[in-house]
Amino acid sequence: MLMQRCFSRSFSTILPRAPLSKQILKSEPTAELLERLCFFKKTQSGIFHMLPAGMKTIDKFTSIIHNKLQKNNDASLVSLSSLSPKSLWDATDRWNNSELFKLKDSKKNEYCLVATCEEDITELMKNYITSYKDMPALVYQVGKKYRDELRPRSGLLRAREFIMMDAYSFASDEKDATKMFEDVNKTFLEIFQELKIPVVRASADSGDIGGDQSIEYHLPLVGGESTILSCNHNGCNHVATDEKALSYPVEEGQYTGDVSVKYGLSEDHTTLICYYFPKERQINWNLAKLSVDDDIDCSLRDSSNQEIIDLFQNENEDMMFTKVLRVMDSRINSRSNFPDFPLKNYLKNNFGQIDGVSIVTAIGGEICGQCNEGNLESTKSIEVAHTFNLGTKYSNPLALKFMDQDNNSDRLVKMGCYGIGVTRVIASIAELTRDAHGLRWPVSIAPWGISIVSMPQGKNSETDKNYSKVVSLFKGTDSKLNIDVMTNINKTASLGTNISLSHSMGIPLTIIVGNKSWPNVEIEVRGERWGNVDNCKWEEMYPQLKEAYQWEVKKASPTDPYQEKHIVSHEHVTHVVNLLLQDL
Amino acid sequence: MLMQRCFSRSFSTILPRAPLSKQILKSEPTAELLERLCFFKKTQSGIFHMLPAGMKTIDKFTSIIHNKLQKNNDASLVSLSSLSPKSLWDATDRWNNSELFKLKDSKKNEYCLVATCEEDITELMKNYITSYKDMPALVYQVGKKYRDELRPRSGLLRAREFIMMDAYSFASDEKDATKMFEDVNKTFLEIFQELKIPVVRASADSGDIGGDQSIEYHLPLVGGESTILSCNHNGCNHVATDEKALSYPVEEGQYTGDVSVKYGLSEDHTTLICYYFPKERQINWNLAKLSVDDDIDCSLRDSSNQEIIDLFQNENEDMMFTKVLRVMDSRINSRSNFPDFPLKNYLKNNFGQIDGVSIVTAIGGEICGQCNEGNLESTKSIEVAHTFNLGTKYSNPLALKFMDQDNNSDRLVKMGCYGIGVTRVIASIAELTRDAHGLRWPVSIAPWGISIVSMPQGKNSETDKNYSKVVSLFKGTDSKLNIDVMTNINKTASLGTNISLSHSMGIPLTIIVGNKSWPNVEIEVRGERWGNVDNCKWEEMYPQLKEAYQWEVKKASPTDPYQEKHIVSHEHVTHVVNLLLQDL
Repeated sequence: MLMQRCFSRSFSTILPRAPLSKQILKSEPTAELLERLCFFKKTQSGIFHMLPAGMKTIDKFTSIIHNKLQKNNDASLVSLSSLSPKSLWDATDRWNNSELFKLKDSKKNEYCLVATCEEDITELMKNYITSYKDMPALVYQVGKKYRDELRPRSGLLRAREFIMMDAYSFASDEKDATKMFEDVNKTFLEIFQELKIPVVRASADSGDIGGDQSIEYHLPLVGGESTILSCNHNGCNHVATDEKALSYPVEEGQYTGDVSVKYGLSEDHTTLICYYFPKERQINWNLAKLSVDDDIDCSLRDSSNQEIIDLFQNENEDMMFTKVLRVMDSRINSRSNFPDFPLKNYLKNNFGQIDGVSIVTAIGGEICGQCNEGNLESTKSIEVAHTFNLGTKYSNPLALKFMDQDNNSDRLVKMGCYGIGVTRVIASIAELTRDAHGLRWPVSIAPWGISIVSMPQGKNSETDKNYSKVVSLFKGTDSKLNIDVMTNINKTASLGTNISLSHSMGIPLTIIVGNKSWPNVEIEVRGERWGNVDNCKWEEMYPQLKEAYQWEVKKASPTDPYQEKHIVSHEHVTHVVNLLLQDL
Repeated sequence: MLMQRCFSRSFSTILPRAPLSKQILKSEPTAELLERLCFFKKTQSGIFHMLPAGMKTIDKFTSIIHNKLQKNNDASLVSLSSLSPKSLWDATDRWNNSELFKLKDSKKNEYCLVATCEEDITELMKNYITSYKDMPALVYQVGKKYRDELRPRSGLLRAREFIMMDAYSFASDEKDATKMFEDVNKTFLEIFQELKIPVVRASADSGDIGGDQSIEYHLPLVGGESTILSCNHNGCNHVATDEKALSYPVEEGQYTGDVSVKYGLSEDHTTLICYYFPKERQINWNLAKLSVDDDIDCSLRDSSNQEIIDLFQNENEDMMFTKVLRVMDSRINSRSNFPDFPLKNYLKNNFGQIDGVSIVTAIGGEICGQCNEGNLESTKSIEVAHTFNLGTKYSNPLALKFMDQDNNSDRLVKMGCYGIGVTRVIASIAELTRDAHGLRWPVSIAPWGISIVSMPQGKNSETDKNYSKVVSLFKGTDSKLNIDVMTNINKTASLGTNISLSHSMGIPLTIIVGNKSWPNVEIEVRGERWGNVDNCKWEEMYPQLKEAYQWEVKKASPTDPYQEKHIVSHEHVTHVVNLLLQDL
């Protein structure tokens, strides 16, 4: 939905009225803080209304996404229906997903509310992709998605209705598909760089979505529900999710404690696979699968050991032809304390063994499996975006085919898909940047770039006049500044209340028009400085401003590192604000 | 979702490739034409994907809505959840609506997909409206709505998933509520004026939504499914929907044919109401209800005459205390041919009669019931927007209360609601303006304001150079023009194909860079001129251009009134384009 960015209205109806207490600002979970500060309002578990301040933040973020994807990747914007027919999901065998919201219309047709749109976009593009000449192509949308999570939590971080950007690429061969995958990932990095948040790319498992190659974007955050592992070796610096990361112990075979076993069956069910690993560690199925060259029936992943043994014995009445494959995690050794082997009748001759592999979830401190040199560091994080090089996982069952240069008409399109959790990114940034005074938005997505505050109108005509003068500098049609401006958030409250509201809502700059300081105004810096503020010599950086204003930076306390304030003549205020915003 | 307007990309993947045949352009229904021209794609009955050209059109229209509502009415933008809980709809007694899409989550909670948001917004605003000081306030959103129509038809004109702008007003008293209602209606008119389409306001029935005052916005259109009646008397000019319009026959009591009767019961069910009217006319329940001062049980509206007679006799065993009220439409007289009266035992004394009222749906040619002077004219139309002055219909059951100036804390908020069918407006405009060459968008919502076409690149280096020069005039960063620019729609097709595609997609101006005409270019005017082009003296209007270019206007045929073409030096092309666009 298009909106002109500079259009600044007060939105006075749905805004916080009174400052939040220190206690609330300090210890309220971020989801509740966002609600009290009128960004979002929870209506049901995992379901939210977006309020004006939240809408502005979302609009600014999606604007960055639109511009980057269209400019860098010539992406075509669409908006697919939210109602996706069951038949498409049957074709890709994804209908039996308990997290899909499902419904029937009055004619008993079945639909789900879209959780993701691989099926719909593949079906749609059959109308527009028929020849190799129609590719490569990138199509995307930004809109509501639905996932019936059993345990929604942390507000917009794990919601049942949320806003997502999902893009889909189409290429005629592997090379173009990989190029497109790389190009879109480059754009994703640029998008997050524009937000000035420290997002990390991690090699990831492609899970239910599918494909060979997958990259996740993580925001490091204490208390995040994901874990990423990064190698500290300079030539490597590999980062992977804990579902994907491969690590080896600093020294192999040193574990002498209890050993756990997890059973599996080969795809043809004639081989029992026994994974042995330290009891204190978790098996990593991606690694476990790799260790046997993928020859494992993955549908049994969640079955218990006993269920697998029973299945193995039932399906193989004659134990003479069965095999047993033992996979030994490299951490254990023969002196480790192994569990009993459950089968009675078997041939020792049919036992195989794989040694020296790593099949457990990586932990910090171990050796990086990528370079075999560095040590891994483990970091808690939130996943904010995910990209997949899909291959033909969707084009095959849904028959998205094209004619190639040699007139072969049944070539399958190679697809990729790319998602950014828009509301999740916003909730993560709130979580990451909040401090004892409230939220602290990067200026690129702050609901308002600046707020101009003063005492309530009508108390002092001189101050009223000065206030109007400063407001008009930013809001006037002459103003060339592309900043959203908030005036007093609560028109009838005191100056102190409005400063406090501006700070807690996370508006990067608060401009205070007081009656004593005039003709100077005070600019309070709330936003986080991404430049090196400690060594910042304003007079040297901007000699033309030397005469115009004094400046001071003071650190109040370790929990409140920056309480930066600039005092500047109102005549130069727009210039100084522009300079400050560049770094916020 | 925010997007910068001038950002012009080719969106080349999802665009028409080949010109449509004359036959298709002439006789294909508009819904199919929009699909062939890649604006929307139907996926299921009444369900559509929005494609790039459609998205651009929607974005431009919603941009106008955002700007007008925020600037004129200080409206706050929100986005409510699409999942609305059953409990809210139970409270207002609207859950039993067969057109609601309903679903359950994994915990068996029931929701509907929002068809309209009176319930949700009323519940939400309880958090932000507590005092008379918090009002008046206007809150709005633009987003997808859902209605499980049994018979979706005419593409986006009657869809099951569609885009709507819905606004809600909150006021502390009747006076403010009416002022707000009028203010928003004023803005609606401005919005449609910006589209340069001839929208008509009609007094309307408030139906299921509720409230006392209601205005519909209609686009007159042959083949529209609505009917509006307008008075031709200059002092009156009253317009009403056929559900609301009151008309009288030119002369009363002239109808001598067969008379129809429709029965009703008074609210206490002790009076049988018999409506008599000409058999050839339709009863209008709004007028029928008014004629008995609203003392009628409306829930019986759809019952047959026999059902009502049975009910009347069952509930009133002693016919001595019942009454019969005959309501005579003013068109009939005593010589008309009345049906038999079905009751045997009744007291003649208990018969009452109302004469001289009009209880049938108005038709063109009759006398306007508003002024009693003019004649009504009947026009087919499409409803594109609707506004309601709701009173306390939703604030009462959902307890949206406030404290007034005298500290009374249980005052009910007076609400209004306002809807514009965004996708419906776009489909209507397509229907209204299309001609033998395809679509003709007003420039305010055209997906692209201009298209610049030439022969395919690489055939003539001189032409390529000239083409790039013209494109850069419009796309360059120096360009101050706020126009979305399309280049060759099909990059590999001929000049003729691209002119035809540009025309059929309804792009207002096509700029042709040919190799013969250079240094002049040709500007073909496709858009409808809303000024008086026949008398337009370009040389007089724009003397500064007199030297710069020649012009010609030619009428090709009655079905193709304007085939206007301007030949102009490329140096002046941006200037001329700007002048032309003002009138399109």
